[in-house]
Amino acid sequence: MDNDQLIGLDWGTSSLRAYLLDANGTIVEQLDARAGVQRIERGQFLGAFETLCAPWLRARGDLPAVACGMIGSRHGWRETSFLPVPAGLDDLCGALTWLDDLAGRRFAIIPGVCTDPDAAFSDVMRGEETQVFGALEAEGLREAHLLLPGTYSKWVRAERSRIRSFRTFMTGELFDVLSSHSILGRLFRRPEPEFDLPAFKLGLDRIGEDPQALTSLLFTTRAEALLDRMQPPALPSYLSALLIGAELSAISDELRDGLPLLVVANPDLTWRYGLALDHYGWRWQAARGLPAARGMAAIAHRTGLLRV
Amino acid sequence: MDNDQLIGLDWGTSSLRAYLLDANGTIVEQLDARAGVQRIERGQFLGAFETLCAPWLRARGDLPAVACGMIGSRHGWRETSFLPVPAGLDDLCGALTWLDDLAGRRFAIIPGVCTDPDAAFSDVMRGEETQVFGALEAEGLREAHLLLPGTYSKWVRAERSRIRSFRTFMTGELFDVLSSHSILGRLFRRPEPEFDLPAFKLGLDRIGEDPQALTSLLFTTRAEALLDRMQPPALPSYLSALLIGAELSAISDELRDGLPLLVVANPDLTWRYGLALDHYGWRWQAARGLPAARGMAAIAHRTGLLRV
Repeated sequence: MDNDQLIGLDWGTSSLRAYLLDANGTIVEQLDARAGVQRIERGQFLGAFETLCAPWLRARGDLPAVACGMIGSRHGWRETSFLPVPAGLDDLCGALTWLDDLAGRRFAIIPGVCTDPDAAFSDVMRGEETQVFGALEAEGLREAHLLLPGTYSKWVRAERSRIRSFRTFMTGELFDVLSSHSILGRLFRRPEPEFDLPAFKLGLDRIGEDPQALTSLLFTTRAEALLDRMQPPALPSYLSALLIGAELSAISDELRDGLPLLVVANPDLTWRYGLALDHYGWRWQAARGLPAARGMAAIAHRTGLLRV
Repeated sequence: MDNDQLIGLDWGTSSLRAYLLDANGTIVEQLDARAGVQRIERGQFLGAFETLCAPWLRARGDLPAVACGMIGSRHGWRETSFLPVPAGLDDLCGALTWLDDLAGRRFAIIPGVCTDPDAAFSDVMRGEETQVFGALEAEGLREAHLLLPGTYSKWVRAERSRIRSFRTFMTGELFDVLSSHSILGRLFRRPEPEFDLPAFKLGLDRIGEDPQALTSLLFTTRAEALLDRMQPPALPSYLSALLIGAELSAISDELRDGLPLLVVANPDLTWRYGLALDHYGWRWQAARGLPAARGMAAIAHRTGLLRV
């Protein structure tokens, strides 16, 4: 086989993104499906992969594949390990899980990363490690803070091109469950109204002044509306700011070392977190390109799955 | 009518508790129903009241009634006002909402209490104000901190027998929505396992050391289990401690004035919060009796609904 192409799979909880990568790690084509791990029954992962990637597999039946994300979790295709920090790209390459039931196709799942066994408390990531290495490579950085916001927002400290430490915040999921299942969401309008900048800044200011009081400030999302001090369309932006602001307040001590802060996210989240970082006076830069694809290409290069 | 008896209704979101009170404010009988405001359609409140209290109404058709709680909210029987702090028992008595469509029966709904219009941010309560005055009277206190834990945990500062200020924490609802709707709950066992004291204390210690980091520590509830550092039956106690500890950390500055701290709750919650307060070294005392019934009796006495 002439290993000049590779399928990279960013296979998360809710979605599956497939990249056809060339020998330079450039994205030739991209295919997306709502085929996240939580939507697929055990035993159906091969079928989901072959269905989405059929156009590529018809042309080249022996294309190798690399996958990152929740596909390597307990509820994914095959449970893979967590590598403890400090973890570098070579550590990931040495701990790939190879699927051996694919009729000759080479298919590797990238492990997750976890905290050190001696750490004060535990944390885990799956998928973000691949984005981290892709983003560091794209920016030519060896030392940085990386913020990967989302359902489980990750803050990563990279040192000598390795993941030195990291921390998860449940920011996105808290916003979702409070909006959908708590009393706060009862006053929210559907569909979600336009972003409200004054309400967002008010939320940032309040949580910034009293970051310990999040679980109390959350309730003001309801009380401000009941007392007619805030209109319902402003509430989601206010709630979002309280949660993002709590995250930034908790991490702020670690940002004072002056290392660059790289935000790795889609444009919407980059913009929203960028507003909050600017509001608190933190310098940051947005990661370019698609770090997950770049990280998978880097691993494929190092393991010979893709010609350098 | 010989006003020597009264029906007191503690009518909340999920349940309705009815007390038959004598002229001393003593509870003669109690009836409970799962007839909370959210379970009753508009227009059906009178029926729910008459059904539950039928045994008393058959004997004494003209019994007056006083109600507190969410029955006075937008989704209740009749929306009542919020009185701004500082609010005393006489202020509540002067702002009762009288239902006038009950064929001669005297029926009053107690207003809620809200923050001052000039306050930095808004907060509201409905029902807890009645418990506060009942508890203060029962303990013979005029100045105190009162903690009313629950779905929306309230911290109240009483000064000269009035509610001077208060603050709500979403502790109970956060526990519920995270257990039922977030990734944390996926590792929880049903039914809820027995309380785990070491996990509870570990959670208190961790949030106590870094109270700003709640939304990150919440995620450790999952990570500790994934890395086999905590067993699934311990997780709910750990999560509970993070949320209760965040509440106590946020309020701790206000407790340093040395006033008595009165915990007004059912025995389970009193015990759980008591453990946490003891762990952090705060002195507290449990409120006796049924403060809601006592508060309603006090209001009935002052308004002539019940003979003194």
